Amino acid sequence: MTDLLSLAELRAHVDQHYAHQVQCLDDGRFEEYAATFTPDGEFQHTPGVEPARTHAGIVRELRAFHERFRDNPVQRRHWFNMIRLERRVDGAYDATFYALVLTVRPDVKEPLVGPSCLVHDVLEIGGGTVRNRSRRVEHDQLR
Amino acid sequence: MTDLLSLAELRAHVDQHYAHQVQCLDDGRFEEYAATFTPDGEFQHTPGVEPARTHAGIVRELRAFHERFRDNPVQRRHWFNMIRLERRVDGAYDATFYALVLTVRPDVKEPLVGPSCLVHDVLEIGGGTVRNRSRRVEHDQLR
Amino acid sequence: MTDLLSLAELRAHVDQHYAHQVQCLDDGRFEEYAATFTPDGEFQHTPGVEPARTHAGIVRELRAFHERFRDNPVQRRHWFNMIRLERRVDGAYDATFYALVLTVRPDVKEPLVGPSCLVHDVLEIGGGTVRNRSRRVEHDQLR
Repeated sequence: MTDLLSLAELRAHVDQHYAHQVQCLDDGRFEEYAATFTPDGEFQHTPGVEPARTHAGIVRELRAFHERFRDNPVQRRHWFNMIRLERRVDGAYDATFYALVLTVRPDVKEPLVGPSCLVHDVLEIGGGTVRNRSRRVEHDQLR
Repeated sequence: MTDLLSLAELRAHVDQHYAHQVQCLDDGRFEEYAATFTPDGEFQHTPGVEPARTHAGIVRELRAFHERFRDNPVQRRHWFNMIRLERRVDGAYDATFYALVLTVRPDVKEPLVGPSCLVHDVLEIGGGTVRNRSRRVEHDQLR
Repeated sequence: MTDLLSLAELRAHVDQHYAHQVQCLDDGRFEEYAATFTPDGEFQHTPGVEPARTHAGIVRELRAFHERFRDNPVQRRHWFNMIRLERRVDGAYDATFYALVLTVRPDVKEPLVGPSCLVHDVLEIGGGTVRNRSRRVEHDQLR
């Protein structure tokens, strides 16, 4: 499933994957976000809640979550940083990184900052593509 | 104009370009910032305002903009993140990314945060160098 | 000491180094943080204070610094960004970049933001590893 790529190629594909993924999410293109996961991918963004599974399940979870912004037209931005990649024994990769959510309200220059999170992804990398097998998000204020 | 570089080489040169570019900007080295654009490059950092054009025009625009900090000796920091690169049909690259401006006042540890922006660059990449053909900045609070 | 690596390989190893380094620091694994420096490495994180030297000295400095958080169980996060690499005449690399410290208090979603810093590292890169020969941190609010 995973080609023997150099660290440079691996990181470049992962960086490109995450840039695409968060831009889909922050644009509200949830089907495209879900498509960055494997077909049976798992997505858990709220600690203690069962993960969403499959593309359809991830889209459903995101639609439900974003109901809270229905009458509150904010622009959210997800920033990922300090991404550490480690090869797993099964050939996939663990990506452990920091995430910060910025929420911008209309006409307010200073965004709301937070939460700050630690994210644990399992990535399947091969054939020029990266897909999330899973994502698990820990919130720093709840640790 | 653009060599056939691997994604890893492309992203490495782009990351290095942006690091150099923002450090010039935040140091007030406006001529060096302008030199990161092509000779006929376009730079629009305020929505609705005509872009500055050419190195001399970009320097003039930056000098005018920074007049507001003349009696207010802040240290600004431009952070770019979540950079997505896409090859254009003309051989250049679209770079779409998030930007956040931090403004640090003397003796105040907590910076002012914002604005949060979405930036659209067109980059010419080749011969080991990256240059901005254009930059257009959208402010999230005005979307 | 430094192989002739492509810019892509250099940056990938440096990005991976920093991700590992800050995750050690923010997890309180100070021995592992110190091990990201060369044996005689120098670490100065407070302007005007003598740098800590050697792995044991760096661990001692970090333990002393973190005493302030003993009864204040925060989760700190160090974000590095806009990393510029330049080869030195001695074959090592200067890395100049921005750093931002986020401090998250229990049950508080919005982190404390700051200080914003400019960091000057000298990196020894070779044989697939990156080590800090030195680190010097400037705080933007003190410039």
